[in-house]
Amino acid sequence: MELSAFSNHCRAKIDQVCIDFINQLNLANTLKASILYSYTAGGKRIRPLLLLAMVQAFNEDINKAINTAASLELIHTSSLIHDDLPAMDNDDYRRGKLTNHKIYGEATAILAGDSLLVNSFQLIIQDDKLTPLTKLALIDKLANCTGANGMIGGQQLDIENDNQALNIETLKKINLYKTGKLIEFSLVAPAIICNQDNEIILQLEQISFHIGIAFQIQDDILDVIGNKSITGKSTNSDNKNNKVTYVSFLGINKAKQELIFHFEQALNILRRLNLHSELVEAIFNLIIKRDK
Amino acid sequence: MELSAFSNHCRAKIDQVCIDFINQLNLANTLKASILYSYTAGGKRIRPLLLLAMVQAFNEDINKAINTAASLELIHTSSLIHDDLPAMDNDDYRRGKLTNHKIYGEATAILAGDSLLVNSFQLIIQDDKLTPLTKLALIDKLANCTGANGMIGGQQLDIENDNQALNIETLKKINLYKTGKLIEFSLVAPAIICNQDNEIILQLEQISFHIGIAFQIQDDILDVIGNKSITGKSTNSDNKNNKVTYVSFLGINKAKQELIFHFEQALNILRRLNLHSELVEAIFNLIIKRDK
Repeated sequence: MELSAFSNHCRAKIDQVCIDFINQLNLANTLKASILYSYTAGGKRIRPLLLLAMVQAFNEDINKAINTAASLELIHTSSLIHDDLPAMDNDDYRRGKLTNHKIYGEATAILAGDSLLVNSFQLIIQDDKLTPLTKLALIDKLANCTGANGMIGGQQLDIENDNQALNIETLKKINLYKTGKLIEFSLVAPAIICNQDNEIILQLEQISFHIGIAFQIQDDILDVIGNKSITGKSTNSDNKNNKVTYVSFLGINKAKQELIFHFEQALNILRRLNLHSELVEAIFNLIIKRDK
Repeated sequence: MELSAFSNHCRAKIDQVCIDFINQLNLANTLKASILYSYTAGGKRIRPLLLLAMVQAFNEDINKAINTAASLELIHTSSLIHDDLPAMDNDDYRRGKLTNHKIYGEATAILAGDSLLVNSFQLIIQDDKLTPLTKLALIDKLANCTGANGMIGGQQLDIENDNQALNIETLKKINLYKTGKLIEFSLVAPAIICNQDNEIILQLEQISFHIGIAFQIQDDILDVIGNKSITGKSTNSDNKNNKVTYVSFLGINKAKQELIFHFEQALNILRRLNLHSELVEAIFNLIIKRDK
């Protein structure tokens, strides 16, 4: 199956599962509306697509992983809502639309993110195609990749190092956690679902390290040269916020070289695994060549 | 065992598990420090104590439930950090100490709460005394009681109804979720751990409904007549915030009657279950007679 057909097929499934799930969170209607707003505000669903492509690379039925992929996308949605808050990056726009707190207010935006962080795990629990032990391993890995030693910890490192002189190693560490850890879940969750051994998981973690950095460098490049009408964000916002990025460190040309270096490292490790990973490669390509 | 001996014994165990767990969240040191600050800032550990007392009422070893009780206390800690935020209740003091965001800033306080919401579930996963199916049932129940259809949804209802004319039924609904749902977990988690049937679980949910309301009424009464040096909060803060409470609705005397009514309802249902529930009763007494 080609990437576009695969993407359309999978996105429809993921969106259906996520939207049905959000619609059940109906105790407080404004809270549900706010969660739905951010979930449906666009987004390429890169992380769940990567997860499902990896499941296919292991020759396994992607239906075994739809709920897991959906839970990952909901966690990602939560991080966008919280990262945009005034106390964090203070962004008014995301994907060309007003951010969650600009529409629903800060309190609801905080609670929307909180709900997603908690309820998303239930999608894995409710999946009747996984064994109890697989579910527990997935929840544990997702909590690790998301929590204080994962994405959220990376966001904290980012805040602490904001407006400070930091070296490129620290920048990489921030990205490894803030951006890389949910990508790591995209690649490792399929290995858990497909009962792969630890050696494979270690290789997948290596790949996600490189792809996470490539992803972030592309983000930084787009911030400088991107077209606001495409990215939906103000160009040069990192510079205005005095944010240290790969581009401010290396300049645009060296940043592009670094991006290609990490992309190729990821591809090399992936190819040595000898999986049916054409779609995974196509998504990697999408990540580094995206224009938003 | 008497309540004070039981409490001291259990608190020491819960604190040890929680503090060891928090110390492992060491990617970003400020984040860890901020979580530790709020966890160790006091608190009576009522919810985990109730949970362990209920396990004992079922004649089961409390060691099977320490991790579950600890995860509940960490979720509760998260809710305190987020509820105090400027966008929420905007409180400067909690338990007589500066609130988390007053010390660590709003961004870190948001991320500290986020981490706890995510990582707490791992304490249940890591427990080697529970079967995989029990762990999944506990995580599912905890996510339900915490998320958009639980405590977090209740906080949203509270925000939406702030400063508005609302009736006492709406006030009860808010409390049922905002305060009652974590108490429900305290009582139902032991039934899950001890393999009780659904009929028992329904009774326990009824008890938690009444105790949740009693707990909240006592909170509202303390807000009016409490001593700040004991409660650690400003007296009359609800009134200053134009917050509708049981006391503003009913007046202090009828609020006290209502408290006793719900307390007795809870006791009646509990006693009909014929468990060894002396300690559970003693903790209920503690809840409605507390002075902070």
